[in-house]
Amino acid sequence: MDTLILPKTSIKFGLPNSRDWKVKLVYLDHAGATLYSETQMEMILKDFTTNVYGNPHSQSDTSSSTSDLVRSARQQVLEYFNASPKDYKCIFTSGATAALKLVGEAFPWTKESCFVYTMENHNSVLGIRETPESRGSSTNHHTENVKSCLPIKSFRYALSKGAAALAVDVEEIENQNGHPRNDLSSLKLSQRSAQRRSRTEILEDIPTANSLGSAYNLFAFPSECNFSGMKFSLDLVKLMKENSERALEGSPYSSGWSLINAAKGCATQPPDLARFPADFVAISFYKIFGYPTGLGALVVRTGKQLPLTCSNSS
Amino acid sequence: MDTLILPKTSIKFGLPNSRDWKVKLVYLDHAGATLYSETQMEMILKDFTTNVYGNPHSQSDTSSSTSDLVRSARQQVLEYFNASPKDYKCIFTSGATAALKLVGEAFPWTKESCFVYTMENHNSVLGIRETPESRGSSTNHHTENVKSCLPIKSFRYALSKGAAALAVDVEEIENQNGHPRNDLSSLKLSQRSAQRRSRTEILEDIPTANSLGSAYNLFAFPSECNFSGMKFSLDLVKLMKENSERALEGSPYSSGWSLINAAKGCATQPPDLARFPADFVAISFYKIFGYPTGLGALVVRTGKQLPLTCSNSS
Ligand SMILES: Cc1ncc(COP(=O)(O)O)c(C=O)c1O
Ligand SMILES: Cc1ncc(COP(=O)(O)O)c(C=O)c1O
Repeated sequence: MDTLILPKTSIKFGLPNSRDWKVKLVYLDHAGATLYSETQMEMILKDFTTNVYGNPHSQSDTSSSTSDLVRSARQQVLEYFNASPKDYKCIFTSGATAALKLVGEAFPWTKESCFVYTMENHNSVLGIRETPESRGSSTNHHTENVKSCLPIKSFRYALSKGAAALAVDVEEIENQNGHPRNDLSSLKLSQRSAQRRSRTEILEDIPTANSLGSAYNLFAFPSECNFSGMKFSLDLVKLMKENSERALEGSPYSSGWSLINAAKGCATQPPDLARFPADFVAISFYKIFGYPTGLGALVVRTGKQLPLTCSNSS
Repeated sequence: MDTLILPKTSIKFGLPNSRDWKVKLVYLDHAGATLYSETQMEMILKDFTTNVYGNPHSQSDTSSSTSDLVRSARQQVLEYFNASPKDYKCIFTSGATAALKLVGEAFPWTKESCFVYTMENHNSVLGIRETPESRGSSTNHHTENVKSCLPIKSFRYALSKGAAALAVDVEEIENQNGHPRNDLSSLKLSQRSAQRRSRTEILEDIPTANSLGSAYNLFAFPSECNFSGMKFSLDLVKLMKENSERALEGSPYSSGWSLINAAKGCATQPPDLARFPADFVAISFYKIFGYPTGLGALVVRTGKQLPLTCSNSS
């Protein structure tokens, strides 16, 4: 249930206030898409009817107005994530899914690569338990309970290049007061069984740790799940970089790049990239300020020389 | 030269009229991006501040408003191309490049496939001739004179699957009055030499006609080139379907699917799909009505059972 629908006679944005009690429809689906404000729309109209923004690729005054705006927007995105322009670049995309797909396509996957992504067991949230009957059935009970909060198809390209995929569960161990312990040792990762993994459609042969040379690995997780609202600890970035052998014992994953899907999380808690220096962050603007839709970004750490390819992107 | 810049004191849309002679900047770059109208922007503001459009994937009144609008927009796109909803579907994308890339990714390429695309020799337009010196040089004289009007990178995926690529020139033979002859026999295609093709960066081994079984082939051309303004005859759709053996003698291409890049052409002359039943048409809306940018479509013919895959799209 993401919207509360009352008898509808007129529609208005935001929360009702006592003076203006005409509101009959209350919009709550901010996880799906948040609402823009009226002021925002008026300012857009004003800007667009007093200025001319040309195609940024042409050579003229109207084009350089556009280029200036785009440059300043990139800067604002980096500031929002507390990311130094020395270390990070902002690449605009058509949304978070497109940003994730871009990583999937541009990452230098090899047969030795391992792609690790988090799953979330929604049994606890939904009160649904896996029954013996559902286990063997061909319907999708399983995939309804277990979600990844990553558009996994975006990474099919990795698998077509022979990379292995590994789904993991993340558990954050609380201290005696019920608060997270706030150190890396409180994070526990467990690998899903092969059987489970095969149900995610993307399983390939999983090589063992010793069959691997050095390779480009990628660990991907959402900062917040749009389905359950569960927030993942950003310490995962550090853990998977410095201590992944302990975290994922016996797996082919040994240190690598990290990707935060912040599509949902960035609306309320943008990852602080000075504290948690992830290599890739995928975001979507309609989740933050409602309008325009169809616009997002990939924030990329440029410090380390990752040989990104663009063989399959336009 | 795509803009004419006069001393700038104020900016206004459209052409100046005699009563309102404040206009100092005349915008001519309609090939790059056309201008939206003030009325259009006001109507958008009005719509967006009186209606609430939710995420189309959710379940609520605000979501079904969005779904209804999207459905009606799809219908309008098909009508614009005189395409029957029985035969065609409209898939929204982030632009023409994304639409072309989607075809590149979803087309069932095999090692036997052949991708034929048109090149245009801009020597005639620019008055630049290939000199013996430029021929052997490492600079890009060649690629400056010869353009394809297709974002060719979108088709790298085809080549990674082993498909062959073949660039062709199209010539339309005129009758004695200097008008096109308006029959298929007036269209002449010629294959570019291997040397030329290798310069386009996408050459792979070109198999010969007899080394091929039946395979999925694709022929792609722009309805209008954004660089030279040259218009290609839409009879190419028919020619390449029915008579490609004559048209491309000795090449591995024998009948196949056709793709029109109508990014530029659709603004003034949308291809009539009832007359020229192309299989794919890529378009971009800012070329037609200026706003919003970042939105386009792929119009796909659904009649023939083409086994499109979505293994690499999101
Ligand atoms: C966690 C998460 N990932 C990805 C997406 C998809 O984002 P976009 O619509 O920008 O592709 C969403 C939006 O629902 C999301 O919440
Ligand atoms: C012939 C042609 N193809 C492709 C494009 C790219 O379109 P889009 O910006 O929608 O990707 C353009 C736009 O300049 C064009 O004129």
